[in-house]
This record gives sequence, structure tokens and C-alpha cells, in this order.
Amino acid sequence: MHFKEKYCEVRARSAGLAAALSDADATVQSMPDASPAKWHLAHTTWFFETFVLRDHVPGYRLYDANYGFLFNSYYEAEGERHPRARRGMLTRPDLATVLAYRAHVDEAIKAALPDLSPDVLHLIELGLHHEQQHQELLLTDILHLFAQNPLQPVYASQAPSPAVAAPPTGWIEHAGGIVPIGHCGASFAFDCETPRHDVLLQPFSLSSRLVTNSDWLAFMDDGGYRRPALWLSDGWAWVQAERIKAPLYWRLEDGRWTTFTLAGRRPVDPDAPVTHVSYYEADAYAAWARARLPREAEWEAAARDHPELPQLYNACWQWTASAYLPYPGFRPASGAVGEYNGKFMSGQFVLRGGSCATPAGHCRASYRNFFYPHQRWQFTGVRLARDAA
Amino acid sequence: MHFKEKYCEVRARSAGLAAALSDADATVQSMPDASPAKWHLAHTTWFFETFVLRDHVPGYRLYDANYGFLFNSYYEAEGERHPRARRGMLTRPDLATVLAYRAHVDEAIKAALPDLSPDVLHLIELGLHHEQQHQELLLTDILHLFAQNPLQPVYASQAPSPAVAAPPTGWIEHAGGIVPIGHCGASFAFDCETPRHDVLLQPFSLSSRLVTNSDWLAFMDDGGYRRPALWLSDGWAWVQAERIKAPLYWRLEDGRWTTFTLAGRRPVDPDAPVTHVSYYEADAYAAWARARLPREAEWEAAARDHPELPQLYNACWQWTASAYLPYPGFRPASGAVGEYNGKFMSGQFVLRGGSCATPAGHCRASYRNFFYPHQRWQFTGVRLARDAA
Amino acid sequence: MHFKEKYCEVRARSAGLAAALSDADATVQSMPDASPAKWHLAHTTWFFETFVLRDHVPGYRLYDANYGFLFNSYYEAEGERHPRARRGMLTRPDLATVLAYRAHVDEAIKAALPDLSPDVLHLIELGLHHEQQHQELLLTDILHLFAQNPLQPVYASQAPSPAVAAPPTGWIEHAGGIVPIGHCGASFAFDCETPRHDVLLQPFSLSSRLVTNSDWLAFMDDGGYRRPALWLSDGWAWVQAERIKAPLYWRLEDGRWTTFTLAGRRPVDPDAPVTHVSYYEADAYAAWARARLPREAEWEAAARDHPELPQLYNACWQWTASAYLPYPGFRPASGAVGEYNGKFMSGQFVLRGGSCATPAGHCRASYRNFFYPHQRWQFTGVRLARDAA
Amino acid sequence: MHFKEKYCEVRARSAGLAAALSDADATVQSMPDASPAKWHLAHTTWFFETFVLRDHVPGYRLYDANYGFLFNSYYEAEGERHPRARRGMLTRPDLATVLAYRAHVDEAIKAALPDLSPDVLHLIELGLHHEQQHQELLLTDILHLFAQNPLQPVYASQAPSPAVAAPPTGWIEHAGGIVPIGHCGASFAFDCETPRHDVLLQPFSLSSRLVTNSDWLAFMDDGGYRRPALWLSDGWAWVQAERIKAPLYWRLEDGRWTTFTLAGRRPVDPDAPVTHVSYYEADAYAAWARARLPREAEWEAAARDHPELPQLYNACWQWTASAYLPYPGFRPASGAVGEYNGKFMSGQFVLRGGSCATPAGHCRASYRNFFYPHQRWQFTGVRLARDAA
Repeated sequence: MHFKEKYCEVRARSAGLAAALSDADATVQSMPDASPAKWHLAHTTWFFETFVLRDHVPGYRLYDANYGFLFNSYYEAEGERHPRARRGMLTRPDLATVLAYRAHVDEAIKAALPDLSPDVLHLIELGLHHEQQHQELLLTDILHLFAQNPLQPVYASQAPSPAVAAPPTGWIEHAGGIVPIGHCGASFAFDCETPRHDVLLQPFSLSSRLVTNSDWLAFMDDGGYRRPALWLSDGWAWVQAERIKAPLYWRLEDGRWTTFTLAGRRPVDPDAPVTHVSYYEADAYAAWARARLPREAEWEAAARDHPELPQLYNACWQWTASAYLPYPGFRPASGAVGEYNGKFMSGQFVLRGGSCATPAGHCRASYRNFFYPHQRWQFTGVRLARDAA
Repeated sequence: MHFKEKYCEVRARSAGLAAALSDADATVQSMPDASPAKWHLAHTTWFFETFVLRDHVPGYRLYDANYGFLFNSYYEAEGERHPRARRGMLTRPDLATVLAYRAHVDEAIKAALPDLSPDVLHLIELGLHHEQQHQELLLTDILHLFAQNPLQPVYASQAPSPAVAAPPTGWIEHAGGIVPIGHCGASFAFDCETPRHDVLLQPFSLSSRLVTNSDWLAFMDDGGYRRPALWLSDGWAWVQAERIKAPLYWRLEDGRWTTFTLAGRRPVDPDAPVTHVSYYEADAYAAWARARLPREAEWEAAARDHPELPQLYNACWQWTASAYLPYPGFRPASGAVGEYNGKFMSGQFVLRGGSCATPAGHCRASYRNFFYPHQRWQFTGVRLARDAA
Repeated sequence: MHFKEKYCEVRARSAGLAAALSDADATVQSMPDASPAKWHLAHTTWFFETFVLRDHVPGYRLYDANYGFLFNSYYEAEGERHPRARRGMLTRPDLATVLAYRAHVDEAIKAALPDLSPDVLHLIELGLHHEQQHQELLLTDILHLFAQNPLQPVYASQAPSPAVAAPPTGWIEHAGGIVPIGHCGASFAFDCETPRHDVLLQPFSLSSRLVTNSDWLAFMDDGGYRRPALWLSDGWAWVQAERIKAPLYWRLEDGRWTTFTLAGRRPVDPDAPVTHVSYYEADAYAAWARARLPREAEWEAAARDHPELPQLYNACWQWTASAYLPYPGFRPASGAVGEYNGKFMSGQFVLRGGSCATPAGHCRASYRNFFYPHQRWQFTGVRLARDAA
Repeated sequence: MHFKEKYCEVRARSAGLAAALSDADATVQSMPDASPAKWHLAHTTWFFETFVLRDHVPGYRLYDANYGFLFNSYYEAEGERHPRARRGMLTRPDLATVLAYRAHVDEAIKAALPDLSPDVLHLIELGLHHEQQHQELLLTDILHLFAQNPLQPVYASQAPSPAVAAPPTGWIEHAGGIVPIGHCGASFAFDCETPRHDVLLQPFSLSSRLVTNSDWLAFMDDGGYRRPALWLSDGWAWVQAERIKAPLYWRLEDGRWTTFTLAGRRPVDPDAPVTHVSYYEADAYAAWARARLPREAEWEAAARDHPELPQLYNACWQWTASAYLPYPGFRPASGAVGEYNGKFMSGQFVLRGGSCATPAGHCRASYRNFFYPHQRWQFTGVRLARDAA
């Protein structure tokens, strides 16, 4: 596909995701971790306007000089910004204005494309992958918002869902040894996936399928949420403080577990992979199952060597036992976009794979997603690992 | 005016206040003390639907059985309800649906009116005064919401404003003695204004005008916010914890103070009464001015005996030195509406008068408004009192 | 008694209260509302050293120049001070040093007494009443501290206790009318008890005895803590947030209620007055009992006119329905001691009477104690009132 | 040294550390992260009493059946326990009683030694290393407690101090490659140091000396605490929320920086290694110095291969860039002591080395200390690393 078509396709998809939303749906922020849909639409546009049009297209005039303050996410180099936890206060600009902002920037980008240098085109490519990340966040944030509403609104009756039927269980063995980890080649990758480097692995096995809701119910029935011996210390404190008894969105109704989805409240599908579990829960489950979570290098090596492994990229993000830290020799990109990944490298765990909410083609074996161990509003699940016998 | 016309007029005014709002404007909650405009519109309607139509009109069917949970404010007798601090999560029903709900209930009320007993008509009258209270809250809540937005949206260029020119200063003397306090007669009053009872007052004087912004600037220039000796202990703790340096919405821009109004950000008018000050600030100002705040019985006696006193009902609410407590012999109304006032009688101070945001005709000399001493997002100001020489 | 003897007696009593305490007992602070026993002993001494010796005795040299910072409670006029919530960090000076500080100041005061002016003697008198207040606080703070210890230490096997046998119930009627309220005469009173002024009261009745533990158990058995209709709104929020199910220190053990006392854990005595209840609980109980709490003027008038009324001063403090506010014409004392009472006049309720922990002779009919409505670590109880039939 | 002598020596050292403390000093808890000295003394004793005497010595009777509840730290398998944040409430048992408890348990252990199996002797060895860890905590917790006191008490005029003169700077190069990491051999190590396993390292250099206070002042002078570009995102949020401007205990007095030490407040020694810095600060400093923090495997390999490297074990703990996670094949010990390390493996970073407060002989190249990235009340400092050119 031509670059311009790619640009148009990605940008159009964002607007498409918002088509089912009212101005109010797109405005409200349901918790500090989440952002309003309108904010996602505007922030991704600000990214192109700032790092491409403002910095590299002579004569470009900002659509609105206030938008830098409103829609900068966390780029300290770009100065002060609206507080993250107050993004939901912005009833203006309204959704229509944000869509007009998008159209304006898209026109400017398309007009500028023929004259841009490869470096700037690379920034646009970064912007498109950035936008794809926000497309997933937009969906998970809307899911969280709608879950707060006792009316349980439906986003889309045919909404993204991780409900892939569970394949038969099995263990994929990997011999370990020195394996190359990280991205290589000319195709796009985020800076945190580089530099490619060798890692020495012990032999290990990876489960051929994700942990299912049925598996999870067995964990719950066996007192999983009530046995401190299964839990990390921080995890047990979290379970007690938040009174956690099941994955996020689960509710017991008339003796049956239901969950809230983008298609509304639904019975928990026993064969679907469990989702919306925290790292703490994933780790406790693994302890209960007498297994462990995979290290990120194990996951990557297995994904490269066994590309036929089911549920790698299309079901849910898979918690790894690896903290999100820089690879040996890591260098952030120069300029403001150097803040993209590197500064988040403390306190978070890596997830690998991709989810039902991830845009097609966005993921790859070297992709590193990351969240705090208590977070679970993403489509996060579990693939088990174990040491070779 | 006929009762039906009164009903229609009050109800129409609420919808009119929302005419300038988008669905998003009407949905967002800017702080737990405030409610979304849409919620005000729906809650006041739920009041009529529940206490009149459901309870007293045979055959009436609820518009939506979920609305009781969503739009009950604090009536424990009506059961569980959506948490107050999460009212802003309700992007559905949207504003149009809420307006349709209003129309539906209005039609049912109007149809039922001819057959209702006097007791039920009294509930409707209560509902109309209740709705007028929410009309004022709707305006102050929108003001607070818009103040969170760096774009500083304008609600209405001709918006309610307390900016009445300051009359010449003077002191109205009152001889004290035994004075009747509280509502009497057949006209409407809230239960907390009764029973009428005698109170013994010492002689006192009341300022003939409200404290102005110009007065307040003198207080600030004299270190008013930096001198603990002027403040109540709780007030000084609040000043320090919240870093209070001026009334709410004030901002120093290029050496001049501005304030945020329903008409957008404006220069502070020196002649207008100061508004958006807390009880703590009002009390500190009075100490600085070597005066005191009036007791509520003093205010009421003076308002009755000097109805020509300026700025009684149309500028801003006036903090009194009286805690909001039951009058001797107070009995809450029976039924769920008995929760209307009585259960709030701890920790709050009485304000008297009325503000630029209060609907015309809503107030009277016996009217008791009440807020916590730190709250200041209402149009709250100061009238001074002093003991007779 | 001579003034010097009175001084020595009061001062000796404080030291006596600490005799059963270890250095550690006297140092730890169990919550921000409470203070360490050592701090009480030092603060009361600092009061004499500062306002008498430093200000009025030429040539006096401070015992330790740091003590002003450490042991000033809340006198803003005396400058910066150690934060209240960190009083328990002061393991030094130790208890023996604080007792030596006391002895030093006592010697200086006694030596100075013959030369002091009446004004300064009045400050000493204030200091003695101040010290008596801290004697009660010392006991209630030790009770709270010991209650945190699973070993349940005993302060004294013959400790102060409100366990006076309940007299027969009855109602004392009062005709109301214009009654003088507040202190008058030459004897000591705090500034907040003045000026004496007339208040107009409706006829009322006061219960001849306090609410007992047996009464309270009936309230609990009748769902008192589970019925929101009985509670003030703030009170119900407090019950839910703090999961309140019984008075402070109560615990159900093998089906029987026990309470923690200065003599250790004991069975709840059904005939003793209930203590350690908050204003919210007192008010809810009164609602349940179809009565109300007395207003402070009613309590004072009844106490003056019926001095034989049982349990006035020796059992527990009695919550009134009156907010702690200045009397008409109230003027705080001049100088730093003007901060003694006036600045606390917001958000608190008045209690009348006196408790088993109050020093003999400290109380009087006009005495106004005050606490926030949620506080209950003092010996606080309930006397009911009702309007005349 | 014979095992019994080793036992006696370690146990005696703990009591010796408490010799300078009053009962109150030993009782107060200055923050939830710290524990009272008395608690350290009792908890380490409870460890021997529970896991050795109770479990393996027939006929042993508990010294006090309540102590399990009071002095269990975090062993869920041992049941409910006193809340960590409330350890400072335990004014009883007093210090003398805790010392008597220690003597009692010591006698029982010594009497039992001849009959104990190797497995149980291993538990005693674990208990001694455990006790040495608490010896260091006792010192850092006392330092923190005394730092809260405006009197700035001196623990010991010849107290442990990291003030080793800075050696000349240089970089120790390491060729990387496959290196064995983790403990091996018969000598003692904690479970988290095992199993020994191979790690593949890139070539790297390690600074020959720690970052000094002089270095740190240069960082501060260059705006280190004011430049968000140097900081991790969580670190910058921490700097702003806590208003961090210097290492813990530093204070600017008359233009010179001082710090609080166990010997009282002292001028900052420019040549001494900086201590009491968080991971966030260490990481920001490294970014400013155009270097990085070492990974724990790099540190361990360099320490093994260059045992002459200065300031390895005797100055301060050195933050590494490695999250505290299980080694491949890690298995916690069986029984309650399996909770010793494994359950803390989330959210923390590894520190290597040892500090001036660490008992002699306690450390080794494979030792893994760990703290949360914001914590800095330990003697924590910085050794820089960089990739090979």
C-alpha cells in the first residue's frame, strides 16, 4: 500500500471507531488511567500537527493555538499541559470540532507528503503506529466508561471480542540457548524494541493456548482469591484493599457469571481466554497452576520459532514476568519523541502479543506493551510457561 | 397565575437554561459537589414522577424503571442509588432523551392535575420549589465546569451576574427584642423554615450593602489571606491546605484581577458584591473589618422590618454566623420528602437572601439556604453586622 | 484554699496521672486527635512558662529555648510549631526531663507569686483550668493508646469510670421563658461562657438520667446502626465509611459485649451510662427514642434550676444539639490567649456537664465543652430532651 | 568460629545496637516503612522461637502466646498479625521485657543446639542472617526517627557512616560474555540468590568509585531536580508531589548543606559517597552524567572479577537497573520461610553491595537487596556504568 493510502486508512479508522459515540460518550473520562475518546482523536492529531506540520512544513499555521496545551499527553519538552486526570472536563471543543481538526490536519499532511524528507516520513510512520495504539486505548476506555453506567450501553453489537474458541491444551518446547531478541530490519518498530541483542535462555515450554475463563473459574472455585500463599505481597495487599474477587467487569447474576463487553453484558464464555486480569492475578493463577509466566525473551523466541502458535496476536495481551526495562544499548530517539517510551521504564511489566482490540497488522514478535501490575482495563490475559523438565 | 401555568413556567425555565448546552456540557460532572446539568433536569423530573405520579396517579407507568436508581439524589427511603460522585459517568441517557422524559412526565402531570387532592398538589408545589433550587445549582455547576476548561467557554453573553452597583454604605439599626422567626401563613415554605417561633435578640446593626470586590481587594492588600489571627482554626487550615489566595475563579493577569463568569472571563468589577467566598473567608473578612457576620434571626428580622434594604435577594447569598439547625419544635414532613432538609442539619452554615442565579420569586425573608463552611462555588457573599454601640 | 496551694495541687495531680506510665507510654501518639501524655505534661508547663514567666517575670530564662517550638499547641501568635500529627515522634526529651521541666517552672512560679499583679494571677488561674482540661485529655488519650495494643494494658485497676448505677427514669420539666445564659460573677470561667445574656426558651423536658448501655443495646438490637432514616446525612456517611456498629471500644466476645476501659477490658455494664458515642450516634439514638438532644441553653437552665439532677457533672459529657458558636457580644481575651476558644467556633457541637475523667470542681453549669460530631474518644454520652407536650 | 559462638555474637550485637536507646526511642515508629527498634529485637527473636523452638524442640513452651500476633512480620502461613503501620502503638511489652524475651529464647536455643538436625541448624543460620538484616534496618529506622525530632538527637558520636574518602575516578572494563550469576557452594545464601545460572552480557564498564556528594552538588547546581528530561516519568511525578530538592536528610543552613547522621547533624562531606537517594534520583543522575546504572549481573560479574574494586560492600547500597525478579528456576524454600523473598518480586529494584550499616561479613557478590524506587531511608547510593565504546 502506498504511504498516503496507509495514512488515510489509519486516520479513517480512528474516526470510524468514534462513529458510534455521542459527543458526551466521547467527552467523559471514567478514571485517571483512561482518556476520553475525543481526547484520543485530538491528541493523535496534535502529534502530527506538532512533530510534522509545525516542525517541518514551512508556513503551516496551527489550527488552534490552545490545542497544544489541551492535547499534549506527556511531552515535557512541549511544555505545560492540561492535567491528565482532568481530561474529562473538556466539553469544548466538541466532537464535531475535533473531527474538523482531524480533517484540517489530514489535508495539510496529504498536501505536504510529496515534499517531506525521509526523516519526517519516519515521524509520520511513528504517528500512525502511535495512532493505532490510541485506537486500542479508545476501545478499552469506552468499555470502561460504559461499564460505569447502570444502563450498560452497547458500543457495537458486533464489537471486538477475545472470544476465540480454546484450542486443545499442549506445551510447546523450546530448547533455549542464545537467541536474538528485539527488532531488526527496515520495517517499523518502536525504539524500545531495539537494539537487537542476544539473550541466553534456559530450555522452557510455553502453553499452546491461553488460560480460559473455564480455567479461571476453577481457580476461583479453589479459593484462588482467598489464599495469600498464591500471591505476591503487593498483589495480596491489592486484593484486600480493592476487595478483588474476579476479573474486572465480572458479576455474579443468579448464580452465573457475566462480564461486560463492547457488545453489552454477556455470559462469561467458558472457552474464551480470560481477559481483564492484572499482573498480580496472572501471577497468582500461574502459582496455582504450578507453572509461571513467561519471560518476554521466551515469548519472543517462541513466537518467532513457532509462528503457528495459536492466540499470539489476536486474542489478548499476555502478561510476562519481565519488568519493562531498556534493552542493552537502548537509546531513545532524539527530540521530543524521545519521551515516547524510555521514561516509562520503571514499575511496569511487559505484555506480549496483541488483542482483539489491536488494529490488524500493528503487532509483531518484538512488540513490547507495558502496564502497571494492578492495571486490568486492557484486554490482558495469561499464557503459562514452565521450565523444561 | 394558575397552578398549571406555574407548573409549565417553572418546568420550561429549566429546559431553557439547558438550551445553550451541548450533550457533553450537560453530562460532565466537574467535582463531587456539583452535578451534571442533565442530571438536574432528570432528577427534578424523577421527583414529580416518583412522589406524584407513581404514588398518587393510578395506572401511571414509569418512563424507565432504571431512572429511579440513576436519578434519586439522596432519598434513602427510595432505596439504593447511583453514587453521587459518579453522576458524570452517565453519558446515556443523552440530553435529548432526558428532555423527552421531561415532556412525558409533564404531560402526565398536566393530565392528572384536575383529579389530585390538595396534599398531592402540595407535593407538586414542593417539586416546583425544588426545581427552582436545582435551576440555581445548574447554573453554578455549569459555571464551575466551564471554569475547568482552559478555553473558558461562554455560557451566555447576557448571563446572570451579581454586578449590581454598590449603594452608599450605611448601617441599619435594629432594636432587637422578642421577634418572630420563621415562616407563617398559607404560602409555600420549606419545612426547615418552620415552626415560627420567638427569638430574643440584642440590639444590632446590619450593613446597608454587601461587601464589594473593592472592599475585598483592600482585605487582600492588607494581608488578609496571610494573617492567621483573622481566621478560624479550620479556616486557616483550609487556606493553607488549598493555598487559597483570593475568591474562587479569581486570577491575576498582567497585574489585574479577573474572574470567571457565565459570560466568560471578565475583569473584577470593584463595585460589584464579592461572590464565591467561603464561610471561612467571610468570617475572616468580618474580623478584619472589626465587625461580624449576622445571625440568621438578625438577618430575618431586619429583612422583614426593612424590606427596602438593598441587595437582599438579587445579588448573592449572604453567609450568616448561624449553624443550620432545626427550629424549636421542628418536624420533618412525613414520607420520603421528610428527608428533604432535616438530615442535613449538621456541619453547615445558613445563608440568607438569594442570588443573581436564584429564580425570581423563589426567595423570602424566612428562606434558609445552607452550605459547608469551605464551599464557595455558589454565588456566596458577605453582609456585615455589629452589636449596637 | 490558698492560691499557691491550689497551684501545687493541680500541678501535682498531672504528675500523679503520669505515675503509672512508662516513658514509652508517655511518648506515643495513637492518632492525630490525641497527644502523648508527655506532651500534655510539657505543654501545660510551657503555658505557664510562656504567658507568665517569660512575659511577666523579669530575669526569667527559658528552661530550653527549643521547647516553645515543641510544646506550643496552636497559638499562631507564638510562631511556628511542631506539627500536631507528629507529636509522637518526640522520644526526647524523655519523661524524666519533662518532669524536671515541670519542677523548674513550678519553682519559678511559686517564687514569683508574691510579686505578680492580679492580671498575671488571672493568667495563672487560666493556666490551672487549662491544665485540668489536659488532665482529662491525658486520660482519654491513654485510654485510646492502650486500646490499640492487643495486650490490652491496664492503666489503673481503680481507674475513673462512668459506671454510676442508673437512677430511675423520669422527665424534669422546665417552663422555658427568658432565662439568663452564661457565666456571671467573679469566679473563673472561660471566655466562651460569656457574656451572660438572655435567651428565650420554649417549655421543655430533660431526662432525669443519662442513656444507659442497656438502652443502647436495645437501639442496636432494633437495627439502630442499619437504618438510615434515623441518621443525619453526614452521620450515615460516617457509619458506612467507618463501618460503625457499636460505641468506640466495644467488642462482641462470645456473644457478650465488652468495652475497653482504663482498668482493662470489661463486660459492658448495662446500668452504666453509654459513653464513647459520637454526636451522630447520639442524634440517631434520640431519633430512635422519639426524643431529641437538648439545646445547650436548655441544659444550662435545667442544671441551674435543678441542681439535684443526677449525673450532671460526674458521669459523661452530654452532647447538645447546639453548634459551638460565640455568644452575643463575645470578645476573645486580648493577647495570645485570645486564641484559646474563639477560633474553634465552626464545625463543632457543644457538650455540657462533665465526666468521670474531669477533675473535681472543674465544671459548672455554664461550662461549654466542644468536639466535632464524629469524635468519640472522650467520655461522651447522651441525655435526652423533648418539647413540652 | 563455632556455630554457638556465631549465634551468641550475632544476637549480642542486636542488643548492643539498642543499648543507646531509651524505652521510648525503641518504641516509636516514624513511618509505615520503618519499624520500632523494640519490634526488630522482638521479631528476630520470634523468628527463632517459632521456626526453631516451637516447630523443632519438643516440650518448648512459648514465652508469651500473644507474641506471635505482635511480632510476626508478614508470614501469612503464621496467621493474622498486628498491622505493620501500627507497630509503634505497642508501648508494652517494654524494652526490658523484650530483652528478657531475647534472653529466654537464647537460652533455649543454646540448650537445644546439640540435638538439632542439619535442617534445623540451617534454619538457625537463616535466622542469623535475617537478624543481621534487621540490625541494619534498626539503624536506618532510628536514623529516620531521630531525624523527625527538632532536637536532632545523637545516636552515637562514633556512629556508622559511609564517609569513605573518594578514590580517584576510573572505569573498570569488563568484556562481558557468558558469566555465571548467583550463589554457588555450601556457604549460606538467601534463596533469591539461586539458582546459579549463566547470563550473556555485552561488554561494559563500571565506575571505580561511587558518586560523591560533591558530584551530587554539581548535579543539583546544574538544575538536576528541575529538568524533567532527566527523569523517569514516575520519578518526575514523585519529585513534584514530594517537592524533592536534595537527598533525604539534607538541609541548607546559612548557605551550606548539612545532613542528618547517626552522629547528629553534620556538614555534607564532599568526598563521601552520596547516600539516601532514591532509584529515581540515581537514574536521573546517571542520565545527567551521560552514563547509566549497572545491571545486577554486570555488578556481580565485576565484583567477582575485580574483588579489589573500592567501595563494594562497606559504603552504601548501589542501585542497579534491574528489577527484583526470580532467577530462572527459582524455587522458594518450603514452609513458612518460603515467604522470605519470593513474594516481594514485583515493583522493586535490586541494590548490590552493602553499606556502612551492614554487619561485617553479611554481604557477598551474589547478595540481592531490594527496595521500591521511591524509598531512600536506607544508605543507598550510586555507582555508574556504561556500555563499552
